[in-house]
Amino acid sequence: MDLATGESAMQSVALARVRYDATTGLVPVIVQEAKTREVLMMAYANREALKRTLATGQAWFFSRSRQEYWRKGATSGNTLNVLSIWVDCDADSLIYWVEAVGPACHTGERSCFYRTLVSDSMAEQADKLSGEVSIERSIEK
Amino acid sequence: MDLATGESAMQSVALARVRYDATTGLVPVIVQEAKTREVLMMAYANREALKRTLATGQAWFFSRSRQEYWRKGATSGNTLNVLSIWVDCDADSLIYWVEAVGPACHTGERSCFYRTLVSDSMAEQADKLSGEVSIERSIEK
Repeated sequence: MDLATGESAMQSVALARVRYDATTGLVPVIVQEAKTREVLMMAYANREALKRTLATGQAWFFSRSRQEYWRKGATSGNTLNVLSIWVDCDADSLIYWVEAVGPACHTGERSCFYRTLVSDSMAEQADKLSGEVSIERSIEK
Repeated sequence: MDLATGESAMQSVALARVRYDATTGLVPVIVQEAKTREVLMMAYANREALKRTLATGQAWFFSRSRQEYWRKGATSGNTLNVLSIWVDCDADSLIYWVEAVGPACHTGERSCFYRTLVSDSMAEQADKLSGEVSIERSIEK
């Protein structure tokens, strides 16, 4: 433990492995349910948010709009227990493997990704207009 | 079909639903194997890259470092067939659900996320130093 930073040796090494964005200091974090592999949300961390995640086992992020740290579920109670953290080949994006306590999305949906980009109704409308069929529609049937 | 842009009505509506970053015009894209739900990689698209993805059913991105469009697998042959595209609650990140032709990572690994941030060897080394145990180690055992 480094008394000046409060970091363990392992934490320091882990935190230094990540390539944070040179301008913003952020790294995108994919949040994935460890059991089902469902992607629940995407948010951003910086070194300090990641440090808090490693230290507490709860998912911490940094809000770009509010410019502040936030622990998922601090208000709602819908916390994310982080079981493991994956880093990609060039170390500039992360996955938090989590166990979600309640819905991850503020809408009450389990995942923030509850809509497809090209919805059926849009596809139907466009089909009428142009006779074309989307990739999504042809797959989902 | 709008002859000026080459876009179908549905494509135009879909492309307009996304909140591209105000500064960069980019949106992060999580690439997930549709069958296994494994996260394979993370990259960025802009409106044009997304348009090409919708039009071709192959995963297109925009490279921030090279500032150019790229189709995954154009060189390697390891293309990604996009089956569906998901958008999150605030429409500023996407998931491509894909069928991967070959490994997605340039290292030859199936996924770019093939390493945990706190590896066992690091944890062992740090344990010796400080006697602490990481969240990853305690879970993975």
